[in-house]
Formats: sequence, structure tokens, C-alpha cells
Amino acid sequence: MDQRLSIVTLGVDDLSRARAFYEALGWRVASEENADSIVCFTLNGIGFALYPRKKLIEDVGPQAGSGEATGAVTLAYNVRTREDVAKVLGEAERAGGVIVKPAQDVFWGGHSGYFKDPDGHYWEVAWNPFSPLDEAGNFAW
Amino acid sequence: MDQRLSIVTLGVDDLSRARAFYEALGWRVASEENADSIVCFTLNGIGFALYPRKKLIEDVGPQAGSGEATGAVTLAYNVRTREDVAKVLGEAERAGGVIVKPAQDVFWGGHSGYFKDPDGHYWEVAWNPFSPLDEAGNFAW
Repeated sequence: MDQRLSIVTLGVDDLSRARAFYEALGWRVASEENADSIVCFTLNGIGFALYPRKKLIEDVGPQAGSGEATGAVTLAYNVRTREDVAKVLGEAERAGGVIVKPAQDVFWGGHSGYFKDPDGHYWEVAWNPFSPLDEAGNFAW
Repeated sequence: MDQRLSIVTLGVDDLSRARAFYEALGWRVASEENADSIVCFTLNGIGFALYPRKKLIEDVGPQAGSGEATGAVTLAYNVRTREDVAKVLGEAERAGGVIVKPAQDVFWGGHSGYFKDPDGHYWEVAWNPFSPLDEAGNFAW
């Protein structure tokens, strides 16, 4: 697993209110596409997303725990190939993490899974064919 | 407020266990200095830290709420000058955020404060004279 982070997603209770706040700070959304379900910003080499808290928990899947880390924030580690998703989840498991959602095709056309670290922080491992990482490993929507 | 994120800090229950997990994934700490109190990694243009959950809440200060976002994760937005800390906190307040810790000198030699967004996510706004941002706005320990 390379030393990188691709996306920080905040679970929010009201997507419009959350979007309005970050826009009032001067931030501009990456795209209006799907902005009624997820609000995406491209930051310095990483993505930042606002997503309804309940949907975020659903995305982690039935294995999502009820700890305080659940639903608040997820981190994403993006990979360069479809096959790397299962590979990285395996690495996380061998390191002492718990796979909460095995690698699988997802509705938006990518392939992903989730593991949690020993403190219950969720990491999505994702292959997104529409937003490949650049050479330096940076991500943009 | 520029469109950037400087540090993601995870609140953890056992710092050694958390460090061992990320090291087992192949990540290397930025420095052993103070690694008994905070474990720092430099990722792709951002910092990543492991910090005891209770200390993280203490750092936010007495205004820290008891919601599920508290103690799990904090985000940091670093600025280029000491004066910019209060300025950015003011911007966050005008945008609808709540200042939970006003700009102040901090024990490690920097100057910082915290605001929370409408969903209770904590952002530290910090000036760190020891780790200035590069021209592109990227951060490294």
C-alpha cells in the first residue's frame, strides 16, 4: 500500500446545508453531475466529498459498526487497476485490519471494498476508471 | 479559504497498536521525534497523524461537543502566516461555522484554532512555522 490518501468523505445530515457552508468558504464544486446525491471538491491532489451520513454507512455495508467513527468520515485509497482493490484489502487484513466489504463492482462503474483499522476508521479501497490517479499518485474528480 | 486540506488526524485508542497497523501496511513515519505522543506520516501533499482520541478532544478544547464526529477525526487547514489563523476562523464563522477554539499560541510553537462545520466536523486552522506549505499549498511534516 503506497503512502497516499485519495479522498476524504464527510458524512452530513443535510447535503444542501453542508454544500452551502463550503461554498460560502469560497470552495467550488468539481461538477454539478450527481451533485444532488454527492458533492465533490478537488483539493490539493486529493478529493473531498460531502455525502449523507446514512448513505455513507450504507455504502460501507451491513458490516458497518455502530462506533463513533461510523458515518462521520471515510477515507479512500484509490488504486490503479481493478485487481489492486482485492490485493490492497488483503494487505490490510494481514496488517491487522478487518475487511468490512469485500472487493466488488459498484453501481457507479468502479470496483471497491472497505476495511477498518484497529480503531474503527473506515478506508475504502477503490478503482475508479473515470478518475485515474496521476503519475504522482494524486487524485482529482 | 483556499481549496486545500493539510492534515487528517485519526483519533485512536492505542497509539502503538495504531502505528503498528499502518507500518504493517508499509507506511513509514516522518520522524521519531515526539512519536510517543503523536505518530506522523507524510502522504501525497498532505500529512496524516495518529493521535490519542482523548487528547484530540482536549486539543479541540472545552467547546468540543459529544457528537459522533468528536474524537474520531479532525481535519487541518494550514495557513502561511500567524495572522491568517484568525482571518480564516472569521471566514468560517461568517460562512455559518462555529468557532470552538479561538486563534491562540499553542504549546508546540505554532498558532491555531478550531471551527466546526454544520455537521460537527472539526477543522483546525493552523500556522506551523516548522513545516511551511510549499508553493502549491502542499504540506509535509
